[in-house]
Amino acid sequence: MKGTVTDSKVDGAPSASTPCWMIVLVVVSLIIAIAVGIVIEKPHLAGTQGNYELALKIRDYWDKIGVDSVTLTPYTVELSYPNVSDLNYVEIVDENGVSVYKSDLKFPVLRNQDNKTNIVTPFSAYSSKGDVKGNIVYVNYGRVEDFDFLENNASVSVDGKIVMARYGKIFRGNKVQEAERRGAIGVILYSDPGDIAADKTDTVYPDDWWLPPSGVQLGHVRMSNVGDPLTPFYPATATAYHKKDPDEYMPSIPCHPIGYGVAVDILRSLNGTEVPFPWRGKMNTTYRFGDSFHNNGWKAHIHVATYPKQAPLYNVIGIIKGEVEPDRYVIVGGQRDAWVFGALDPSSGTAVFLEMARVLAELVTSGRWRPRRSIVMCSWDAEEYGKIGSIEWVEQYIKPLSGRAVAYLNVDTALEGNYSLRALGTPLLYQPLYSAAQKVPNPNTSEIAAGRSTVYDTWFITSPRSDKNVPRISLPGSGSDYAPFRDRVGIPIMDIRYTWDRKMWKISKWPMYHTVYETFYLVDQIMDRGRAVGQVWLEMIRQLSDDLILPFNVTDLVSTVSEQTASLLQRFGKVMHENGIQTEILQEAVANLTDSVNHFEHELHTFNKQDPYLVRRINDQLMSIERSFIDPQGLPGRRYKHHLLFTESSMDNYAGSSYPGLTDALTRIVHGENVKAQWDVVHKHFSVLLFVLQSAQSVIKDTTDFMFSY
Amino acid sequence: MKGTVTDSKVDGAPSASTPCWMIVLVVVSLIIAIAVGIVIEKPHLAGTQGNYELALKIRDYWDKIGVDSVTLTPYTVELSYPNVSDLNYVEIVDENGVSVYKSDLKFPVLRNQDNKTNIVTPFSAYSSKGDVKGNIVYVNYGRVEDFDFLENNASVSVDGKIVMARYGKIFRGNKVQEAERRGAIGVILYSDPGDIAADKTDTVYPDDWWLPPSGVQLGHVRMSNVGDPLTPFYPATATAYHKKDPDEYMPSIPCHPIGYGVAVDILRSLNGTEVPFPWRGKMNTTYRFGDSFHNNGWKAHIHVATYPKQAPLYNVIGIIKGEVEPDRYVIVGGQRDAWVFGALDPSSGTAVFLEMARVLAELVTSGRWRPRRSIVMCSWDAEEYGKIGSIEWVEQYIKPLSGRAVAYLNVDTALEGNYSLRALGTPLLYQPLYSAAQKVPNPNTSEIAAGRSTVYDTWFITSPRSDKNVPRISLPGSGSDYAPFRDRVGIPIMDIRYTWDRKMWKISKWPMYHTVYETFYLVDQIMDRGRAVGQVWLEMIRQLSDDLILPFNVTDLVSTVSEQTASLLQRFGKVMHENGIQTEILQEAVANLTDSVNHFEHELHTFNKQDPYLVRRINDQLMSIERSFIDPQGLPGRRYKHHLLFTESSMDNYAGSSYPGLTDALTRIVHGENVKAQWDVVHKHFSVLLFVLQSAQSVIKDTTDFMFSY
Repeated sequence: MKGTVTDSKVDGAPSASTPCWMIVLVVVSLIIAIAVGIVIEKPHLAGTQGNYELALKIRDYWDKIGVDSVTLTPYTVELSYPNVSDLNYVEIVDENGVSVYKSDLKFPVLRNQDNKTNIVTPFSAYSSKGDVKGNIVYVNYGRVEDFDFLENNASVSVDGKIVMARYGKIFRGNKVQEAERRGAIGVILYSDPGDIAADKTDTVYPDDWWLPPSGVQLGHVRMSNVGDPLTPFYPATATAYHKKDPDEYMPSIPCHPIGYGVAVDILRSLNGTEVPFPWRGKMNTTYRFGDSFHNNGWKAHIHVATYPKQAPLYNVIGIIKGEVEPDRYVIVGGQRDAWVFGALDPSSGTAVFLEMARVLAELVTSGRWRPRRSIVMCSWDAEEYGKIGSIEWVEQYIKPLSGRAVAYLNVDTALEGNYSLRALGTPLLYQPLYSAAQKVPNPNTSEIAAGRSTVYDTWFITSPRSDKNVPRISLPGSGSDYAPFRDRVGIPIMDIRYTWDRKMWKISKWPMYHTVYETFYLVDQIMDRGRAVGQVWLEMIRQLSDDLILPFNVTDLVSTVSEQTASLLQRFGKVMHENGIQTEILQEAVANLTDSVNHFEHELHTFNKQDPYLVRRINDQLMSIERSFIDPQGLPGRRYKHHLLFTESSMDNYAGSSYPGLTDALTRIVHGENVKAQWDVVHKHFSVLLFVLQSAQSVIKDTTDFMFSY
Repeated sequence: MKGTVTDSKVDGAPSASTPCWMIVLVVVSLIIAIAVGIVIEKPHLAGTQGNYELALKIRDYWDKIGVDSVTLTPYTVELSYPNVSDLNYVEIVDENGVSVYKSDLKFPVLRNQDNKTNIVTPFSAYSSKGDVKGNIVYVNYGRVEDFDFLENNASVSVDGKIVMARYGKIFRGNKVQEAERRGAIGVILYSDPGDIAADKTDTVYPDDWWLPPSGVQLGHVRMSNVGDPLTPFYPATATAYHKKDPDEYMPSIPCHPIGYGVAVDILRSLNGTEVPFPWRGKMNTTYRFGDSFHNNGWKAHIHVATYPKQAPLYNVIGIIKGEVEPDRYVIVGGQRDAWVFGALDPSSGTAVFLEMARVLAELVTSGRWRPRRSIVMCSWDAEEYGKIGSIEWVEQYIKPLSGRAVAYLNVDTALEGNYSLRALGTPLLYQPLYSAAQKVPNPNTSEIAAGRSTVYDTWFITSPRSDKNVPRISLPGSGSDYAPFRDRVGIPIMDIRYTWDRKMWKISKWPMYHTVYETFYLVDQIMDRGRAVGQVWLEMIRQLSDDLILPFNVTDLVSTVSEQTASLLQRFGKVMHENGIQTEILQEAVANLTDSVNHFEHELHTFNKQDPYLVRRINDQLMSIERSFIDPQGLPGRRYKHHLLFTESSMDNYAGSSYPGLTDALTRIVHGENVKAQWDVVHKHFSVLLFVLQSAQSVIKDTTDFMFSY
């Protein structure tokens, strides 16, 4: 339903019950295929000419199709590259210093068609430069609990050692950070077939989607939520001040990634006790803790000549102007840069994104429809280095975004499989996603025949919530460009993709993730899922940009807060209570917020929608509630993280955490770390959380009754 | 002009050209007199029963007259009181330890009618407790330049000494802070007749408005912009976490205030060189630097038993609900607590405020008028202790205020003389004040006869700007409750009062300021100026709460920024340039902002005012521009001060400063303090200022073209 002003202009717009864009989108499968081809034709690493050219290509394309305005926003930031005249490696040297095993200096090309210039060589971005030699300790996934197990159960210390960790389960930067914290002098990261090739190492790329022995996962290892390392909190524009002291989040030990081709040789050479079953991967050898070599006198050697470099970034920002409320922004963004070709990550998303832009532009230029609110489309640079393009942009435009941004939809990797939908997001966007997915035809025609006619149907069956009759949507960590929108602006975010059967293949990432083998050849077969992903996004964009009342479900928000509270108290309630924390006050604060939300929901369904000021007021309140969880003082010990309720776990950048500040401190207390100081953190942060919940209540209450007399 | 929705309801509202409220206000002179009488009947120090009772009285009164909703918002905060069983004093003891001169333990009552219970005894609030003995150095006003002069020109060190400073010129807390920084062990503050009795010490209260010898200025000496000392950044609600470590802003040496009755005896006993002419006050003695006594063996002794106490505060908040945009708040606030009776400070303001509330309520309850926006009226507690009531309230409701507050009008002391208007405020409110003052009849009827028919006419003649044909409005320091609204929320503020002839009497404060002699007897004679002040306020409130478009003048804002920039560069441009700061970039940023403001002004005069969404968008932009100057990272070294362009000088809490961050650092550089580190501060903060100016530009630009491609 529209307000009076807009009633005259909505004839051409699709109604909620007529998803006409779906029809427009019939052609996209082919177009996406072509777009992916264009997008991944050349390597386009952040800060290089290849990615700048791709930015220009996208800018010109958006201009051509009729996006209202297109801007390149440039920054100069500190990236990290391997030294082409002094390549990185890991080797094992014998007692005479002679190399026994050595990792590839360059990535072997497995298909002639993939042989392109400007392919980066193996490195961990932001690794410290240097050479370290020593014994190797195998640390499983390098999680806090893995290091704990080593120390407490296996009596192996990593102090002064090189650790070898397999990729998977958590963000690689957390592995390096924890290794460094425990005194390790270097880190070797490798991809274990158990995690990326299941047990099918005999059929690998280019014959299958499993990773070949030479496959190396690239990636950065900085603990990275500040964007450009030298300009924290402020945009890295031409006039920015650059810090001189080293970034506190930068690793100070060298780190290098290798494939399982050489990893198996290294592991075979290790001595030490055999590891327990859960620590074993799928390489054909006995997994041992190491700490010495079978051949006395052998040593591991990591050589890293990677160096920091000031490099130019370019975000491409296209705006489709809103007709009624141009000053409200539905933001749709996607990473553009890739480690090499990035066929899946992010180019499958880039291609879908370009096609979405084409559809939107076509509707607008043909005069059939223009959204009520503005749609701001962003092609981000340097996501791979820690979401730098999006963070700098959020830092630069924090004021207009804080006042005007409605929601952020993240079109990163659209395709990592062809099985079903996977979603990460915050609660206000659950319902818009559910309703969009219910309108999009199932791309798997055999499933349609079996009665699962929509994307939602398969999603619901493959990934149901255990407690409610809806599909599961996880709280996001900080794995992609949505993070600054949640953490700095406090707006709801969503990230979706098509994924593999995660029950069948219990792997953290698709096998070719961040390797040189993420090519068009790989993505070609799952192209039609891209169409479905684009369709879901477009229907969400339509709702968010065109519904008179923002389609946020505030009840989902408070339910999630309630669930989080219950889960926190189940885990830590007893110890909190024993230490003088009145946990019932937290429950009361949540109950009070819930009451106010219920009142608001009632008003939402009964108010006079003909009054534009009332519509705007209600929408402003809907926009404000999640922003109330933003505290510029930040989480305890994490001053860059301003969202106190939903953000990533401090132990895994990829994973979402509820009540992250309390969970962190209480976990440390349970571990016996710094107990007195941590209890003080808990007491203080507990009171801040009560304040923040009350803040949310004060913005959602009647606007002329926003105070509390207690 | 009104939008379509509101057209039907505005018949009863006064139009801009018919200031009908002035007529309603004819009775107020008498009513104010009565109200002042009620308000100052009993002492009402913050945290005491007297001030709680006054809060209840105001709440009940607002309820009775028909204010839509009235709320008491309670906090528990750390205040400071003298110990009734161990009173404070300053004395001079001879070589045998016998007291020669000693300050009054209690304030002498000069009129029987003023003899009330619960009058506080002499103290400096938040002084450190303790006894110190030593020589006295006379430090003039205790400004940075006074201490510099002592060290550099008079070769007198205050290290290990008690300093004696006269009140005046700057905030007393800055005197104590600077004394402490230079190693002093105690501070005596006194009121010099030169500053508070001109040269008429023979005619004083109760016979005249000059201060008698026993008059002592009370006041707090904490450097105080954080509100409650124990809950910085967060409201001191029942569930607040309280800091355990001492507040970094709390003085660590004892400080005590005295009258000139005993000060002259102390000064007469001092040895040392005679001070230069500008250092001399008007007591009948020779002013000397001191540092020793005429009688060898004499010592000064400060005894302070003042102690901190957790005390309850109550703000009274009344809301008149807006009819069209209830979620936009025009905030009108005034201090309620007083050191004793507070006839002028703040009760002259409280009385005017109560009468304003009565007029507004009468208009609303009679059905003649209801404002478009909500009017939020706040009676603040504990202003005298450092704006604690208002700061806690702003901290608690920072989220709704950040989104909804339009402007803040500060009704502190309304009357400090009967000569002309005096105004402190930020540029967006210059025009509303000018136009309001032009509509209010001159309360001085003899001036009307001389052709000065309005408040504005006399104001313009007595206090013209040197560069423009308008009266002067100074940038505010942090002297009253407006500070948190500017510094934390970023909204425009205004503070007005009737003052004395400041050219004739060059005194910093009216003589009886903060003394026990601020009684009804004193205020009675200047009562009719209260009516004029109330009338000016009401007309400003009408404009701000009822104009379709907020009456902010953005051109005044950028002109002020331009003037500030010119003044900064005139003072420091050369040294900045010599040290590699490209000052022309700052000028360019200001010019760019000015360009965008000009475009916006053009739109403002031409846009379709029938479109409510457009009206709201324009108003949102008007609300956003000053908020862009807010940076939660704070000023360098002052993390509680978030307004980077207009805030108080770090050398005087009372004085406004332009570019405070740069001015502070550059002043230190010019003084040769910590030069290398300060240049780094300048380089960094310069880039932050460029960012903030660009931020302002991005919110005032076309909302679908808010970015920069350079």
